[in-house]
Amino acid sequence: MTKEPKNTFGMIGLGTMGSNLLQNIADHGYKCAGYDISADKVAALNKLNPESIQGFTDMNDFIDSLSSPKVVMLLVPAGKIVDGVIEELIEVLDNGDIIIDGGNSHFTDTDRRYLDLENKGYHFIGMGVSGGEEGARRGPSMMPGGDKKAYGIVKPILDKIAAQVNGDPTVAYMGERSAGHFVKMVHNGIEYAIMQLISETYEVLKNGLHLKHDAIHAIFEKWNEGRLQSYLIEITRDIFAYKKRGTDHLLLEAIKDEAKSKGTGKWTSQAAMDLNLPVPIIDIAVSMRDLSKYKDLRTTASRMYPDSEEIHYHNKNDEHISKLEQAFYFAMVSAYAQGMHLLYRANEEYHYQLNLDVIAKIWRGGCIIRSEFLEDIYTAYKKDSKLKHLFLDAAIHQNLVESIPGIRTVVSEAARNGIAVPAYAAALGYFDNFRSEEMPANLIQAQRDYFGSHTYELKGKEGSFHTDWEAGN
Amino acid sequence: MTKEPKNTFGMIGLGTMGSNLLQNIADHGYKCAGYDISADKVAALNKLNPESIQGFTDMNDFIDSLSSPKVVMLLVPAGKIVDGVIEELIEVLDNGDIIIDGGNSHFTDTDRRYLDLENKGYHFIGMGVSGGEEGARRGPSMMPGGDKKAYGIVKPILDKIAAQVNGDPTVAYMGERSAGHFVKMVHNGIEYAIMQLISETYEVLKNGLHLKHDAIHAIFEKWNEGRLQSYLIEITRDIFAYKKRGTDHLLLEAIKDEAKSKGTGKWTSQAAMDLNLPVPIIDIAVSMRDLSKYKDLRTTASRMYPDSEEIHYHNKNDEHISKLEQAFYFAMVSAYAQGMHLLYRANEEYHYQLNLDVIAKIWRGGCIIRSEFLEDIYTAYKKDSKLKHLFLDAAIHQNLVESIPGIRTVVSEAARNGIAVPAYAAALGYFDNFRSEEMPANLIQAQRDYFGSHTYELKGKEGSFHTDWEAGN
Repeated sequence: MTKEPKNTFGMIGLGTMGSNLLQNIADHGYKCAGYDISADKVAALNKLNPESIQGFTDMNDFIDSLSSPKVVMLLVPAGKIVDGVIEELIEVLDNGDIIIDGGNSHFTDTDRRYLDLENKGYHFIGMGVSGGEEGARRGPSMMPGGDKKAYGIVKPILDKIAAQVNGDPTVAYMGERSAGHFVKMVHNGIEYAIMQLISETYEVLKNGLHLKHDAIHAIFEKWNEGRLQSYLIEITRDIFAYKKRGTDHLLLEAIKDEAKSKGTGKWTSQAAMDLNLPVPIIDIAVSMRDLSKYKDLRTTASRMYPDSEEIHYHNKNDEHISKLEQAFYFAMVSAYAQGMHLLYRANEEYHYQLNLDVIAKIWRGGCIIRSEFLEDIYTAYKKDSKLKHLFLDAAIHQNLVESIPGIRTVVSEAARNGIAVPAYAAALGYFDNFRSEEMPANLIQAQRDYFGSHTYELKGKEGSFHTDWEAGN
Repeated sequence: MTKEPKNTFGMIGLGTMGSNLLQNIADHGYKCAGYDISADKVAALNKLNPESIQGFTDMNDFIDSLSSPKVVMLLVPAGKIVDGVIEELIEVLDNGDIIIDGGNSHFTDTDRRYLDLENKGYHFIGMGVSGGEEGARRGPSMMPGGDKKAYGIVKPILDKIAAQVNGDPTVAYMGERSAGHFVKMVHNGIEYAIMQLISETYEVLKNGLHLKHDAIHAIFEKWNEGRLQSYLIEITRDIFAYKKRGTDHLLLEAIKDEAKSKGTGKWTSQAAMDLNLPVPIIDIAVSMRDLSKYKDLRTTASRMYPDSEEIHYHNKNDEHISKLEQAFYFAMVSAYAQGMHLLYRANEEYHYQLNLDVIAKIWRGGCIIRSEFLEDIYTAYKKDSKLKHLFLDAAIHQNLVESIPGIRTVVSEAARNGIAVPAYAAALGYFDNFRSEEMPANLIQAQRDYFGSHTYELKGKEGSFHTDWEAGN
């Protein structure tokens, strides 16, 4: 155990993410320390790079090993465990020390902890980290928010360990209080939406166009070389090439069709609803993961409701695949647009001081939703930092318009043929309402007034009005 | 002011709902009392039926006027006001008295209040009331939950003031703790879904088929005489006949297309997400109300994204309207099915002791979602009280199957023509996944394992597995 404090960075929670991030930090010349209650994990850490990384099972030794101001990052499961660790930490830290919560904490928890810790004299940073284990090791995207001064202290480290895009690190100060965790939550919501769109694409290719895996692999490979290039398309390409050992069967085919989740997509939908901000592609991604778990019901229903006719697409396969590329582009842009709109709205409500261009910039590398298209988003917000919605950007507008035939064809053919594409359909329904100066919501206003005297508003006239609707009939 | 306690029922909150409910109670031979902080409202109440209804602005006089056990119902805005009134009440009520919260309280608040009041020796009933002002006056549907003994005491009154269907009152004990408010919340979620479907029907008829209001009126009139008969279709029919005074213009046309809400639909979606239970038609109804409020954005977007081609439906109007009737039936059944599925799931999780047949039974009259079809739901659950999902009922199955061509045509034609029907599309997407023994969610499992080592499960093999996906490529 060290007697003289020499470590610059401390990590609590030595799962693969925590351990990988420490190795990443050590690679950049910082000495660092890790703490875990599991002696095995600490022992494993101590074998990695003893010159630069020390592991501890004793909290006091761990803290004593850090130079001041002490910087301690938590990578532990979200929820009560975070509160427990923070409680332990304020027993051993000094005023002015810095606590970073790098887990997927709910932003309302981060708000509460931020206020509490600032009151007690500690600096708190709520930081979203994306990129998975590989990202943590080689360069994640990081979304810190909260105490800006404390951020200034850790910035040099974060800049170095982040992924780099065009020479810029994929980390930046997001904004006040829980801004970092809010942005990370929305990142994950977009991730859910795009993953759902990819899975529906698989459905169309497999059950709509009856393509084999090799052909599907080739499509994702091709898409990953064009404007759809993205980490999620790239790993999908790989998944469609991964055979079960010693066989010619895809591993994918052996995997259960019941999607798990850790809840950040759900949080995004729920938070958006609290802000009255529509993110229907994320909503449907959440509910389709939920539906996937009802395997027994689905199996029963599949016997009762078989396909009524043979599935037959009007277009030739090549033509439909090219429409599908347009549709994916359209729906993917819509998913990002809904997420960015949510950030715009959250910024109004929570006064985070977000910069949407900065967010797009740091999402271009390191994180799960990194993609070619994020460059376009970055350009759009750099051009107009007050842009209210991505659909209003001139360059994106042009590309979207060209892709409309694709999404219309994909949704209408799927509906006709019994192929489920609820996220594509949600993207299209959102768009067709979004571009409607008049929505049919006047009828909802009238109905609410009819049955509940909730009153309605009139076009071009101030005030609320009530009608005795029955009397007129 | 009365000196001898003679009133059987007390009401706090004398808005139209509260006042109407008191008149309804008085009509059935009970003497009752009302309290409000507004002297005007109390004065108005005192003019209605002085023999049977007394109004008070003094809480003590109000309480003293009630016979024991005192029964006090709250019809005040949900939230902190309910807590404030309850606090006042426990100062003046005796142990064993009964408090009924008849407002739209969030079920988690009702759980908290129930526990708190039971601990303090008071009986608490959380009761959903549906039917609007007219229902309150002539016979609402009521969903009480919580203290079952206390329910026994107020049952004779509730049975009399409820609407009656085939000689049975539309009120029954729902279940433990917050069961009543949970059921009412889901009622409202279904209401949101059906209202959204009706508004999309309006959109198809008006902008898809270019029908005039008279024709639309005639369609809803006809639908209300068939299997779609329901209160919401009935009032829609009326709304399409209501002209602005002295003109030939529909009042509807003058109403702003920005739908308001009080949040119970949002609560339903959020609660369903917490239970991992998909209710996508409700979700989209919530988010489309939210989108309707972005009038400025929509107006801008309508200029940038005009219809690309002339709207042209393949079918003749009559044929498409008949498909639309099928589609509405299909989607309406789906909306009820999703709501009932949510109740089924909530019952598992919260141990409410719900009886889905009883719920369907009391929804057949008095409430906003009353409809012919609720008779079929009632029949289905009466036949099989453990029915896991309405789609699995044999009779409903038959009708659904016959309606499939309708929903497929409506969604695919709308998608092709740029008419927004997101709730219809959500109904269809839900169905097509629901009847899929294999969903493409295996791909989501594989992706999660690829980027986050979240592991996956295999078909027919216990355990969790992880693959180093990159290594195989």
